[in-house]
Amino acid sequence: MTGYMLWNKQIVERNAENTLVSFQDRGYQFGDGVYEVIRIYDGKLHALDWHLDRLFYSMEQLSIRAPFSRTEINQLLKELIKKNTFTLDGKLYVQVSRGIQPRDHVYLEELEAVFYATIDRFDKPVDMWEKGVKVTLQEDIRWLRCDIKSLNLLGNVLARTKAQKNGYHEPLFHRDGIVRECGASNFYMIKDGEIHTHPANHYILGGITRKKVLLFAAELGIPVHEREFAVEELHDADECFLTATPLEIVPIIQIDERPINQQQVGETTKKLQQYYRKRVYDYQGA
Amino acid sequence: MTGYMLWNKQIVERNAENTLVSFQDRGYQFGDGVYEVIRIYDGKLHALDWHLDRLFYSMEQLSIRAPFSRTEINQLLKELIKKNTFTLDGKLYVQVSRGIQPRDHVYLEELEAVFYATIDRFDKPVDMWEKGVKVTLQEDIRWLRCDIKSLNLLGNVLARTKAQKNGYHEPLFHRDGIVRECGASNFYMIKDGEIHTHPANHYILGGITRKKVLLFAAELGIPVHEREFAVEELHDADECFLTATPLEIVPIIQIDERPINQQQVGETTKKLQQYYRKRVYDYQGA
Repeated sequence: MTGYMLWNKQIVERNAENTLVSFQDRGYQFGDGVYEVIRIYDGKLHALDWHLDRLFYSMEQLSIRAPFSRTEINQLLKELIKKNTFTLDGKLYVQVSRGIQPRDHVYLEELEAVFYATIDRFDKPVDMWEKGVKVTLQEDIRWLRCDIKSLNLLGNVLARTKAQKNGYHEPLFHRDGIVRECGASNFYMIKDGEIHTHPANHYILGGITRKKVLLFAAELGIPVHEREFAVEELHDADECFLTATPLEIVPIIQIDERPINQQQVGETTKKLQQYYRKRVYDYQGA
Repeated sequence: MTGYMLWNKQIVERNAENTLVSFQDRGYQFGDGVYEVIRIYDGKLHALDWHLDRLFYSMEQLSIRAPFSRTEINQLLKELIKKNTFTLDGKLYVQVSRGIQPRDHVYLEELEAVFYATIDRFDKPVDMWEKGVKVTLQEDIRWLRCDIKSLNLLGNVLARTKAQKNGYHEPLFHRDGIVRECGASNFYMIKDGEIHTHPANHYILGGITRKKVLLFAAELGIPVHEREFAVEELHDADECFLTATPLEIVPIIQIDERPINQQQVGETTKKLQQYYRKRVYDYQGA
């Protein structure tokens, strides 16, 4: 945790008094808001442009009036890093809620959105990269606009808590017999040296790391198939991995009781991980 | 709006200072909480027992540790009415969020839930009862646990705002070709003097008013079919209506462009409305 946070265009001390919101903030009564988690490497915001693209997309999809211009938020987030003299690896969390209004599903057009951002230290999860994680299949009961990074996260909350209670890092969601994504990460299966992953549509959140991995796979000459595939196809997977902004590329060595690649990190996954580490700094963001 | 509100077992003045929550309240970051809207007639909480049943059910389904016993909350809500010397018709809103925690999907077991309750005046919507309302069909994209009265309400927020913008009182949700419920109310179709409505399962919120209406229909000798029916069956509807705690029984006189019963309130609906008004005070709650 760092000493300063952003609070509606002001940089303020991060303490209990400065971080209070109205009970009539629509974020609190309806989950009516959006967010982003941006990676920080050595005190620099990573792939900031792509995250801002997605943040503005999410607001637009929900008709939330952006309380800042693109240039403004870009500057504010960088000032926040500076004010905290933050030079480590970390995560920046930024949340925008629609605003404050007496409780009514139907929102007023002229609301002023409420936003804040915080920075927390987050080291590279080297252990996870090397050892991999286990995931567990769960039915996807979330709403059908998973492409919006919204605050309606109960489906993820319940699924991830259940998975971790049972000794798994993540749930692996399936819906209508199709493998979708994990609880807070995108999912990939490798078969005969080729990558298969769900198309970026309303069933999944189109990850920023996903975008990079697909780019890097192309650079490495690894074919990628963005397609829906059935749960049964997992039986034929040579390797599996997941990607998420804080975690980058994490090998999956087991799905429920079934080991993947004898619980070893596979060669293609390793190649992608190494290339990712080499290339990732090219996406430091504007 | 009344002068006092309930804030975690304290009755406090309802003002801007007393109504602030932490930005790390899980209600704010994940919509991780539940709520109830309880009707007040002449200053008396209506069907309180049934609402508390559902409140405890919602908390249990999300594994939220209830911050009060059943007796305690019953007393607190009644004290709140008394403290406000509220003797009119109104709505009591009570919300429970899982508690405060540094942001993580996975919740800590030992969290202390945060709750509050407010009272607002709400008159009987006599005009709606007499004239009816229009609804508009919309695809139901909400999550698959609509039986839990949770704060993840973006699906309802978007659908209701869109409907009202287009001149309709409510969206009428359908999913997989089946008519489900409205944006904040249950839906009923009357055909040949018999009522058809969706079964109370995970696709809809099992309304308290729905429960009463089904009871009253039985008392009136009107057959009720709790079953899934297709959107196409709406073409054969003689009458339609919706029910919701604040609104009771509201006739539906139009679905999109199609008038129902020549845009008149039907006889069966009228009979139910009258009987409801007569019998409803027997459910004043404990």
